[in-house]
Amino acid sequence: MNYQIRKAKISDLDQLLNLIVELAVYEKEPDAVEITVDDLKASGFGTAPDFVCFVADMDTQIIGIALTYTRFSTWKGRVLHLEDLIVSKSMRGKGIGSALLDKVVMHAAALGVKRVCWEVLDWNASAIEFYKAKGADVKRDWNVVHLDQNGIKKYISKLQP
Amino acid sequence: MNYQIRKAKISDLDQLLNLIVELAVYEKEPDAVEITVDDLKASGFGTAPDFVCFVADMDTQIIGIALTYTRFSTWKGRVLHLEDLIVSKSMRGKGIGSALLDKVVMHAAALGVKRVCWEVLDWNASAIEFYKAKGADVKRDWNVVHLDQNGIKKYISKLQP
Repeated sequence: MNYQIRKAKISDLDQLLNLIVELAVYEKEPDAVEITVDDLKASGFGTAPDFVCFVADMDTQIIGIALTYTRFSTWKGRVLHLEDLIVSKSMRGKGIGSALLDKVVMHAAALGVKRVCWEVLDWNASAIEFYKAKGADVKRDWNVVHLDQNGIKKYISKLQP
Repeated sequence: MNYQIRKAKISDLDQLLNLIVELAVYEKEPDAVEITVDDLKASGFGTAPDFVCFVADMDTQIIGIALTYTRFSTWKGRVLHLEDLIVSKSMRGKGIGSALLDKVVMHAAALGVKRVCWEVLDWNASAIEFYKAKGADVKRDWNVVHLDQNGIKKYISKLQP
């Protein structure tokens, strides 16, 4: 395997979006991806980018990504969130996920944050196994809550008399 | 009940930290809070603040807070995260949590984000009931993962030969 881990460039975004869609299909939400290449470009490559993304580049083919941003914990201060760690299906089991996670943890250490956090589906046993082997703590008592776009609209409509 | 919901000010931070500690005790992690008033001031009140916090102010007594910041979803784009929604114990059941959440959802709508997200402990039945009644979706299949400060150190030490 000959690949390098580096920061994402604008020219990677088409392939990056393909991997995002690939993960959504794997997570059984194929229609959930609303974002476009233009959105990714605007959000990630301006003066105050919303994220920092690393890619695994094998001869200009993007075979994996790790997308991160900082969050604010009222217990710890600034922490690093790993939004997506994706390795293309045909490329799994070759250490690419580890190499990407290594880069993320080095990035966290460079930022001086006190935590790296992310989310995992409880049926994704191989991912959970992988994260635990890396020393992470899978907190099964914490659940994720979403109020989606439709929920926001309904909520607001009830506030207005 | 005579209180107003407004943005937090620097002079609120002592009381704000008290509420953060109160929640940590309730969540059975009394020693988890490492943050200080100075940290909160530096992170929340500079030129590029890490969070936007709303407070419930009853005659200069801070009886509740809702602390938010934006995150980046690779499916939806920019979303609003509700890090903490806290109402002081003696003030619960009076609609203050609802008033704070109303403000958060209005803030989300003003930002034009497609989602408000947060996390809840699975044993916190009253909170889950409250959020569901507001139209939120409690995703019991998504778990939170943490690599803490000690975990980051161990991870980095293994990378270096």
